[in-house]
Amino acid sequence: MTTTSSIPGYTYGTETVAHSPISMEEFELLKQTVLFTEEDEKALHMAGEVLQDQLEEILDLWYSFVGSHPHLVQYFSTPDKQQIEEYLAAVRQRFRQWILDTCNRPYDQTWLDYQQEIGLRHTYAKKNQTDRVSSIPHIGMRYMIAFIYPITATIKSFLARKGHSAEEVEKMHQAWFKAVVLQDTLWCYPYAKEGYF
Amino acid sequence: MTTTSSIPGYTYGTETVAHSPISMEEFELLKQTVLFTEEDEKALHMAGEVLQDQLEEILDLWYSFVGSHPHLVQYFSTPDKQQIEEYLAAVRQRFRQWILDTCNRPYDQTWLDYQQEIGLRHTYAKKNQTDRVSSIPHIGMRYMIAFIYPITATIKSFLARKGHSAEEVEKMHQAWFKAVVLQDTLWCYPYAKEGYF
Repeated sequence: MTTTSSIPGYTYGTETVAHSPISMEEFELLKQTVLFTEEDEKALHMAGEVLQDQLEEILDLWYSFVGSHPHLVQYFSTPDKQQIEEYLAAVRQRFRQWILDTCNRPYDQTWLDYQQEIGLRHTYAKKNQTDRVSSIPHIGMRYMIAFIYPITATIKSFLARKGHSAEEVEKMHQAWFKAVVLQDTLWCYPYAKEGYF
Repeated sequence: MTTTSSIPGYTYGTETVAHSPISMEEFELLKQTVLFTEEDEKALHMAGEVLQDQLEEILDLWYSFVGSHPHLVQYFSTPDKQQIEEYLAAVRQRFRQWILDTCNRPYDQTWLDYQQEIGLRHTYAKKNQTDRVSSIPHIGMRYMIAFIYPITATIKSFLARKGHSAEEVEKMHQAWFKAVVLQDTLWCYPYAKEGYF
């Protein structure tokens, strides 16, 4: 079992994390827009139990998807297209923890702040800095939004593997979908023109 | 049957439409990112047949969702919160056509250009102009992205109403989900900082 303090660059809840420009009141309205309720929180906790011993397989799938698309793997590569293995490995540890955080963390101010930090780490502002690598300096917002599809669609089969009813699987999957859309929305804040978010 | 030329402000394929800043090559990469294939095109055509006589019911559902949330219906209201009925009605006709276009139009240059036009019409650049109304001048990008959830989740029951197998319904629904994410991504171009999309 990895403790979060051993994950490189994982600064959840620390003082170095950005502050969210979104208030809790604004976040409440976002939650209403994706129909996110306490039922979804419960379903996410259940999903966390279901997924916790499948994390490597999920990451294998996502990494093979990224790795098989040059327009995606470039973001983990040097400008002359050499994959940076230690970067891929470090991000993988945080990505693993992200699955657990999505399912288990309370969506409070600390969580909200970390979404801003995650967003910034995909842009010119902070990409590459955490891992001190020389990769492409920015991930286009188009792929941030487009990733909602693969990250949502691929999780369902993993949710179905532990003997839950079709109804329970669907509940977990819908909660995951909402959680991904919520987070993705927050991650896009640093991409928007002033006053456009 | 409404002809598209009678839909107020619906300028698909006309010279007044914006040009997409995204090339067809870039669009191809986006399609790959959401795993969009010819199978999805076929599934969308099938969805078009399934949905075409349910459009009013779908719009009733979406409008009641928007109407029951002050933070959403404000975008169809005057700054002092009076709903603008003719604006709601005009948008409703375009929204109805949007469902059909999502299912039936080829995703070619004309379609790509219209996505840019749709995006602009949600921002300071063009909101309210088409319908010559005095509403709030801009819809925050947060709601553009967050709407992926309700627009995707609510369509499934309509897809299931015409006696198709669970597998066919799922195919149509996944194709719809991909199409919504693709379009939503394109609509967000005008929101992004220069070079951030």
